[in-house]
Amino acid sequence: MPNENIYNPHVSVDCVVFGFDGEKLKVLLIERSITEQNELYNDKKLPGSIILNDEDLDDAASRVLTELTGLKNIYLSQFRSFGGPDRTKNPRDILWLENTLQLKIGRIVTVAYVALIKIDRKIQVKYENTQANWYNLDEVSAMNLAFDHAEIIKKGLEHIRHSLDIEPHLLFELLPRKFTISQLRSLYDTVHQMTSDVRNFQKKVAQWPYVVALDEMEEGVPHRAARLYKYKK
Amino acid sequence: MPNENIYNPHVSVDCVVFGFDGEKLKVLLIERSITEQNELYNDKKLPGSIILNDEDLDDAASRVLTELTGLKNIYLSQFRSFGGPDRTKNPRDILWLENTLQLKIGRIVTVAYVALIKIDRKIQVKYENTQANWYNLDEVSAMNLAFDHAEIIKKGLEHIRHSLDIEPHLLFELLPRKFTISQLRSLYDTVHQMTSDVRNFQKKVAQWPYVVALDEMEEGVPHRAARLYKYKK
Repeated sequence: MPNENIYNPHVSVDCVVFGFDGEKLKVLLIERSITEQNELYNDKKLPGSIILNDEDLDDAASRVLTELTGLKNIYLSQFRSFGGPDRTKNPRDILWLENTLQLKIGRIVTVAYVALIKIDRKIQVKYENTQANWYNLDEVSAMNLAFDHAEIIKKGLEHIRHSLDIEPHLLFELLPRKFTISQLRSLYDTVHQMTSDVRNFQKKVAQWPYVVALDEMEEGVPHRAARLYKYKK
Repeated sequence: MPNENIYNPHVSVDCVVFGFDGEKLKVLLIERSITEQNELYNDKKLPGSIILNDEDLDDAASRVLTELTGLKNIYLSQFRSFGGPDRTKNPRDILWLENTLQLKIGRIVTVAYVALIKIDRKIQVKYENTQANWYNLDEVSAMNLAFDHAEIIKKGLEHIRHSLDIEPHLLFELLPRKFTISQLRSLYDTVHQMTSDVRNFQKKVAQWPYVVALDEMEEGVPHRAARLYKYKK
């Protein structure tokens, strides 16, 4: 094996964090600003960065997510690595990375993680130039995203769908602690890319022993208040 | 971010290839010989190697598996990356790698793939010092394996179990084209680490429309010949 064919890529982690606002599935992205030929250019990227020397992959993912969003103790699940040599073909991505990290960058293999979190978790910013925000997933495909992050988000969503087939309770990670059946249906339909019939969905949920009706109703809503439910393990 | 904390690990691929001999689940391993203080030391490792500069991860996995075992056109599914800094803590592993690749090696992040293949596929050897063989999975835990390959095999098996929950037809990748119900039960039990009741298992299989009885019986067996079945997509 000729060794001029082997060099060391950098290794990074990227986090695909999904949330649900009651109507739409959202993904957490970082605003990125690049000055190119004296013009300021903005786009978005997943929370991610290069791993450190003494860091395990899982630890790197947790650290990077906390540094860029303030989120702590999030269950991040590794779902796939992306390492095509053309991941860094856009000079803008390389320029930005080299400016940010003060490192010469060639190829990067990234290990991607996915998380489902409640959207009311507080998002903070640690670094001056970093701003994390939620974006509607159905609008992401029309955005300018760094590297292959659009592809990583797509594969992350596929992974979530597969996981829900085995562990349906994961859905409740995205809902508030008390939720309406309409919110649950809206989330279920979004994740599975379908439109459930209202009555059929209510019948389906009635068969889920882990969805428990509370003795409470919604408050302060402009429509008729609906009953609240909770997820019971 | 202080940059003395960032350097480039190597990136490798490793392939966990499972086969089934009619009785036991097996995994494909490579014999490794190392001369240490003038003594020859033997152990085993997964088929794997460092990725090349211009190679995607999937392409690297296919190339390496072919080079080390002769197997071509195998469906390899990426299931997890392993990158703990202590993966290369055994000096024997570093010595072997540096001798084999003529490269200075520090940390290695490996991207692991899994495959299910029919055990009668011909295994070849391309390199003089390489010998690939099937080993019983239940004996692997007592073997000396390189790096964290024992852990990678364990996680690979877990991944297969999860995949079978969603895609039960994958099981038939491991069986010969024509198989007996007893072989199918034996494989099913091995993968799921259980012992099925013979009659209950037959009832279960009767409900699987994709298992079709053939007008053929086993031949040349010391016991009463059983009916042969095939998998129909």
